[in-house]
Amino acid sequence: MMAMAALKTTAPSAVMDILKELSEKRGEEVTAWMESRAMESGAPFYSSVDVRHAGYKLAPVDTNLFPAGFNQLSGAARSRAATRIKKRLMRYNEVSRVLVIPENHTRNVGYIDNLTALLSILREAGCEVELGSLAATDAPIEVVNSASETLREMPLARHGSLLKTGTGFCPQLILLNNDLTSGLPDVLRGVSQPIVPRPSQGWHRRRKSIHFEAYDKLAREFATAFAIDPWLITTEFHKCGRVNFGERQGLECVAMGVEKVLHRIRAHYERYGITSEPYVYVKSDSGTYGMGIMTVKSGDEMLEINKKIRNKMNVIKEGVQSTEVIIQEGVPTVDVVENAPAEPMMYLVDGHAVGGAYRVNAERDAENNLNATGMRFVGMCDEAEPHDDHAQRALPPCQFGALGLIAELASISAQREEYGESYSI
Amino acid sequence: MMAMAALKTTAPSAVMDILKELSEKRGEEVTAWMESRAMESGAPFYSSVDVRHAGYKLAPVDTNLFPAGFNQLSGAARSRAATRIKKRLMRYNEVSRVLVIPENHTRNVGYIDNLTALLSILREAGCEVELGSLAATDAPIEVVNSASETLREMPLARHGSLLKTGTGFCPQLILLNNDLTSGLPDVLRGVSQPIVPRPSQGWHRRRKSIHFEAYDKLAREFATAFAIDPWLITTEFHKCGRVNFGERQGLECVAMGVEKVLHRIRAHYERYGITSEPYVYVKSDSGTYGMGIMTVKSGDEMLEINKKIRNKMNVIKEGVQSTEVIIQEGVPTVDVVENAPAEPMMYLVDGHAVGGAYRVNAERDAENNLNATGMRFVGMCDEAEPHDDHAQRALPPCQFGALGLIAELASISAQREEYGESYSI
Repeated sequence: MMAMAALKTTAPSAVMDILKELSEKRGEEVTAWMESRAMESGAPFYSSVDVRHAGYKLAPVDTNLFPAGFNQLSGAARSRAATRIKKRLMRYNEVSRVLVIPENHTRNVGYIDNLTALLSILREAGCEVELGSLAATDAPIEVVNSASETLREMPLARHGSLLKTGTGFCPQLILLNNDLTSGLPDVLRGVSQPIVPRPSQGWHRRRKSIHFEAYDKLAREFATAFAIDPWLITTEFHKCGRVNFGERQGLECVAMGVEKVLHRIRAHYERYGITSEPYVYVKSDSGTYGMGIMTVKSGDEMLEINKKIRNKMNVIKEGVQSTEVIIQEGVPTVDVVENAPAEPMMYLVDGHAVGGAYRVNAERDAENNLNATGMRFVGMCDEAEPHDDHAQRALPPCQFGALGLIAELASISAQREEYGESYSI
Repeated sequence: MMAMAALKTTAPSAVMDILKELSEKRGEEVTAWMESRAMESGAPFYSSVDVRHAGYKLAPVDTNLFPAGFNQLSGAARSRAATRIKKRLMRYNEVSRVLVIPENHTRNVGYIDNLTALLSILREAGCEVELGSLAATDAPIEVVNSASETLREMPLARHGSLLKTGTGFCPQLILLNNDLTSGLPDVLRGVSQPIVPRPSQGWHRRRKSIHFEAYDKLAREFATAFAIDPWLITTEFHKCGRVNFGERQGLECVAMGVEKVLHRIRAHYERYGITSEPYVYVKSDSGTYGMGIMTVKSGDEMLEINKKIRNKMNVIKEGVQSTEVIIQEGVPTVDVVENAPAEPMMYLVDGHAVGGAYRVNAERDAENNLNATGMRFVGMCDEAEPHDDHAQRALPPCQFGALGLIAELASISAQREEYGESYSI
């Protein structure tokens, strides 16, 4: 039995040093292990993973199966994405006609730039693509990206069990870039063509707590196989059902959950001599757009929140009310881009990291959720496209390998969420 | 709502006519639907499916995840297998070094011919391959095929979590052609490299009843989507736990199960005016080598079986005792090859049918299990390699499409066995 690798210092490079050493000494085993897990369960078609790096730990805090932001990726990252998509589709019977179903908030130029990039990646992968809108009824919806190009989102029509667009385009694959917060629309029910991600992975059914349970299980297997302390790559969390912030119902459960998670974090902090004050995030267990996330340092704080905050916690995308809550260990970010706190967002195709970007927010601090007003994106160091201005722009060092590894664990876990305990090799 | 397609006659071509019509009228939908299910759950690396065709129905009766008999496949079928393997492996990180772990009964020339064919298919797929034996200790085991070629099965060794062979060959993929009846050997425990099929799919854990539950669910979804009577592609079955034929324990449960299944078959026979006498197979719920399978026509018959038959039912591969039993609807085969009863065996890679062969047994009749003394294999009609001697040799007509469809449903189901009820889209 090998000794478990634990932090030796709490320096900003502590966990990166451990992961770097693992990669140098047992890289072949790590690669084989990851392939093995990907082959077992498969991996999501695409995903983005928000990772937080605290120096003493590196852990995913959100895994998105309907990623936006492909426009943030470098040219090299986009090419890697195209190659992965091509390989994934090649496995099936010459699937090349792909219909992309986007979100319905069509005026967000950033999102339309994402669609532009995604379509271009799919075309580079050899696909014939169309956009199909759940909102368009008779006529196509035209949207304009930041380069003033017009994208047409076509209305959808059913022909028996086949989904086609108004142009008669009959896709062989339906790629959702719409997270189904409002549920699976009728036009997609009973469709013969494959839909990825699986409709059951939409935010109308998916729960963060189930994701983090699946991640925790896989990350602990990884930590056991490679003799590292699992806390270095996971977060403590707790779930509360039936919370209504507006009506002040269920806040006691949240307050107790906050204390429970803080208690566990304190034990880890003591082990490692980490002196900062622990905190947690309280957020909806279903998907959000960065809305309704609180940073909390005690259970009492939770009971004392005022009406303004309670209303903020009740505002969930498309009016769905928050009823389940996850309390997750807060990971203060050590990454800084141009003097502002930053967090890495990794992009994956078929479970493999293809690129990344930093979410930067000068209006927030290292403890906050950065997915909020004031955020912007800065390209991540990329072996295939070195940044000449790296030092000048004060970007974090190139850590794509370690960030990619953690993101890949999170992405594969997302594919395992549904199977729960029945998933065992 | 479309009317459900049901048998119009009980002619030998009845179910084939329905499937042919479906393929002609809704072929594009069928292809899309199958791709959709394969993308949802993935499919086994390889498999063989024993199908029985009774004229009035076409259903799988056994799905093998560790197929032998690749030597029975035509050249065109082997090339299709190689292409599928190449596509499947391409999806991962340049996996090309493959270790094949065969069964331990090394003197069976037919099985060694199978290994020879499998290695040649893998090489055609671009793989570097070695055989690694679970039985070899220090020195390689040499086995000889029917062409007098020698195959070397190398001893295995662990280097940390990596599995290598005595030659230092470090595979990127471990392909089991050993069905793990005796359980997962220590040398394969905690191995980093991917192992396919998943070790949990070995016969030490797999159960036929769970396979047929998964098949039943998927086949009923198919039948609903395409408006055909599900009984035309499924079998009735029932499971009994804790049966010891040697000690006459649990036979009452089996007898009652036999009556229950016969009762259900009679109702179907009445619906369709099928006049033959219904029967069932009683077999171990775990894997066998064609041993321990009884053909039974009443519950009483089960209670009256003599010692000789009881002993035969107790002989399971490698001495594992039969404790769980499945009672499955008997499907009399309508297929005849050179005047002897025959049943189609379909071979699949990654969930796609690549070829087939007929198992022929002149010592048995149309109701019997043909996997017994006297069996031989005859190549199946193959669009890419037409048999000029087709008519002369009295082979069944070319039914690759319909046989492949049913086998693909069975193969995809096999990948879904573990998830049980939690598997839902």
